[in-house]
Amino acid sequence: MDWLFEVGIERPEKGARDATRRIDAQLRAAIADGRLAPGVRLPATRQAAAAFGVSRNTAVEVYDRLLHDGYVVARQGAGTFVAERPPAAGAVIDEGAPAAERPLNPFWLRPEVSDAIGFWRSSGDDPHADAPAVELRPALVDGRLFPHDVFRRIMAQQLRALERSPPSYRGPQGNQGNGRLRAAITRHIAVTRAVACQPEDVIVVAGAQQAFDLLARSLIDRPGAVVAFEDPGYPPMRAAFAAAGAVLHPTPVDAEGLIVECLPDAARIVCLCPSHQFPLGVSLSPARRRALLAWARRRGAVIVEDDYDGEFRYAGSPLEALRAGGTDIVFYVGTFSKCMLPSLRLGFLVAPEWARPTLVAAKNALDWHCPILLQTAVAAFIAEGRLTRHVRRMRQVYRRRRDLLLERLSGDLSPWLEPIPSSYGMHLAALARPGVDADAAADVLARRGVRLHSLERYHLGPPTSRGLVFGFGAADEAQIERGLDLLHETLRR
Amino acid sequence: MDWLFEVGIERPEKGARDATRRIDAQLRAAIADGRLAPGVRLPATRQAAAAFGVSRNTAVEVYDRLLHDGYVVARQGAGTFVAERPPAAGAVIDEGAPAAERPLNPFWLRPEVSDAIGFWRSSGDDPHADAPAVELRPALVDGRLFPHDVFRRIMAQQLRALERSPPSYRGPQGNQGNGRLRAAITRHIAVTRAVACQPEDVIVVAGAQQAFDLLARSLIDRPGAVVAFEDPGYPPMRAAFAAAGAVLHPTPVDAEGLIVECLPDAARIVCLCPSHQFPLGVSLSPARRRALLAWARRRGAVIVEDDYDGEFRYAGSPLEALRAGGTDIVFYVGTFSKCMLPSLRLGFLVAPEWARPTLVAAKNALDWHCPILLQTAVAAFIAEGRLTRHVRRMRQVYRRRRDLLLERLSGDLSPWLEPIPSSYGMHLAALARPGVDADAAADVLARRGVRLHSLERYHLGPPTSRGLVFGFGAADEAQIERGLDLLHETLRR
Repeated sequence: MDWLFEVGIERPEKGARDATRRIDAQLRAAIADGRLAPGVRLPATRQAAAAFGVSRNTAVEVYDRLLHDGYVVARQGAGTFVAERPPAAGAVIDEGAPAAERPLNPFWLRPEVSDAIGFWRSSGDDPHADAPAVELRPALVDGRLFPHDVFRRIMAQQLRALERSPPSYRGPQGNQGNGRLRAAITRHIAVTRAVACQPEDVIVVAGAQQAFDLLARSLIDRPGAVVAFEDPGYPPMRAAFAAAGAVLHPTPVDAEGLIVECLPDAARIVCLCPSHQFPLGVSLSPARRRALLAWARRRGAVIVEDDYDGEFRYAGSPLEALRAGGTDIVFYVGTFSKCMLPSLRLGFLVAPEWARPTLVAAKNALDWHCPILLQTAVAAFIAEGRLTRHVRRMRQVYRRRRDLLLERLSGDLSPWLEPIPSSYGMHLAALARPGVDADAAADVLARRGVRLHSLERYHLGPPTSRGLVFGFGAADEAQIERGLDLLHETLRR
Repeated sequence: MDWLFEVGIERPEKGARDATRRIDAQLRAAIADGRLAPGVRLPATRQAAAAFGVSRNTAVEVYDRLLHDGYVVARQGAGTFVAERPPAAGAVIDEGAPAAERPLNPFWLRPEVSDAIGFWRSSGDDPHADAPAVELRPALVDGRLFPHDVFRRIMAQQLRALERSPPSYRGPQGNQGNGRLRAAITRHIAVTRAVACQPEDVIVVAGAQQAFDLLARSLIDRPGAVVAFEDPGYPPMRAAFAAAGAVLHPTPVDAEGLIVECLPDAARIVCLCPSHQFPLGVSLSPARRRALLAWARRRGAVIVEDDYDGEFRYAGSPLEALRAGGTDIVFYVGTFSKCMLPSLRLGFLVAPEWARPTLVAAKNALDWHCPILLQTAVAAFIAEGRLTRHVRRMRQVYRRRRDLLLERLSGDLSPWLEPIPSSYGMHLAALARPGVDADAAADVLARRGVRLHSLERYHLGPPTSRGLVFGFGAADEAQIERGLDLLHETLRR
């Protein structure tokens, strides 16, 4: 049976970079219009891979996305079946009007949006598996080294304080965030990032992602507003702005960071990671900083500075945050997900005065404020000097891991990969030398229990860089060695 | 000096119901266009009150809103001054383009939006004051009676568990919420609200307010979509839908709840509190339930059921949640802010399958997921039977307070107020008898340290009901007596 032919799906070109997306989009369309009817059994991933001419891992990735978004269901031991009520189909309902009439914003199920939100998933990601043998994805942290005992004590203290003066009299009314936390953040970033601000400039948010969402809803003043992003960049940030109606403009990056000359005239908002480009790891050069600030001022544009791991600097004098050059046009986004724990869901936004009432109103209308207990616990953690101590310790740990990684990349891995210099953070990128298929290497490694990203998933526009991203936030030195050994084996074939 | 004349501001009609809003809007306009220039000192509240012909409290309320939104600044001992860089003014900036060109969504500073978000503020609210003598605002809870010691123990357990298996390997990727919590929620609402669902139907959100925001962003499929709300109703819920581009349609309420015959044909989304109307307290009658469900089915419309305090039932057999009549068209919103603590910022949404992938995607793109620690702590709290025990205990406490309130309202306060029957929750409303100025009474009481709301602030359309809302979630019986004594004194004059 030529299954593809029957269903009217095209096999992507061999080696097409966006094969996963194209197969996924076609299957969704076939399910939505009924060519694949509810209850129909999809071929096993091995056969699907053969039919599409892709790796089995790619087929697994596609099925996983369809499962996650409700298009198919998996039945233990029986296989994968089209869902009875897939999202975009005119499903039969109990009584009354057909589902097609129901109010539903189609934005959230667009493949590119699912891609951006599912960004962290790696090939062969099994949500039921234990931690993989080696975790080399970027932007993860080593929870094993966090001072949990200290945090536990602090939380207990804060719970007692909560008991003594319950905040319930304030009702759910909104605010910018706990005063002590905002003061602690102010002191923290003054020291680590040379950001000079006052506590009233700080808004506490539920992580950097919520900061992006609030900025999008506060700064996009009409549908179709153009927002420029670094490309390759960070897809979840783009999704937040797209949700608010922005048109996303991918802007290239080179060794000096964002190429300011390539910014579109129409853009009024530029988003970037100036201290540690994500994922390439380069820092915005002083010349580009000046050019970017001048460019923004000439146009009345604003800049969103995503400084997710700026505390972790390894070489050279610390770069001032971009904000120092434009406190009235730069929105500085910070997070506790890297220097503390991502599970806390806490971050902050330092905003110019003219935008602050708008941002605070948007935050209040969204979810009032962040949980008081976590805010006061983090404030106390910082005030006791624990954050400084933890960052200092982790900087040493991450530096050793980074040095190990660079040694291998410049050593036995250098025939295939060229590291991009980076003085910050818990990841670095390596470009693939000509003829090296980085995406396939990542797929193979995933099957062998090593999770890492290739650069492909970070691009909005055509993939201009090919290579791999190495996160060393989660894996220890032994795990890194093991992962790189497997990478070496894989690349040799 | 006729200050008003000089600035070109009109004194509102004597006794105008929306005097606060009109004065506020005019002052903002005068500041925005420079008639009140940066640095200019506003008259003291006493003089402003005399000039506008309103109570001093109203003047204080207006100044407080201008302060909160950044239009004015207060200098200790010196007075209130127009801000150097008020939000909408063409403020002078360091260099470059005028502020008027900067991207800023004006939605969040509209007076009606500020009103909705500032909903919880009461007249004379001084953010620096201690808890008032008597707190009679609705939707607050008595934190003094929460089992903090139990919660502290549970949190410590969860922190230890977090330490043993750090979730960092999952990165910030999104999900519907902690599995144990969703299972616990499922069991909890099955017992308390006869909601039959599965854990996979539940999405954990940052409180009911975030549920409204996610619903608005997931269900509004085009700008100008009509959404019907109960009027009087809950302003923060309306703000979330307005932010997503909805046109708000206020729909009247009577003793049987929402008047279904008055729903606009164009509406595809209806939001209501069927078990305990907010603020009037009535329950949707069985006849209206059937009518509403039939109305929605005929049109392919959906219903948002806000069940904020449905556990607290005092008389009669429990009403099934509205959802029981339409699991495919009703979105059930629940919260832990009333049955536990508002500072946790945790709630949940039970959604039909066809909308769930969209809602989960929107939640993930917004802030990934709620803090893991709080989710697992609440899950354990529920699993240990502590929530059931706490609700049972609080139900007794609140019932006694409610009975006391009803006694006074039917007794010495009955010449001026008529209570609206209500079998649920921690507040009830009383209509003002003819000739009784409820708004003025609330103002006077606020000055005397008793915080309570009049019905005026709950209306979107013209105020059809005049009266007072009595919350008894926060105040104990002695405080309630004292507040009612002061009310009696006030009304007698």
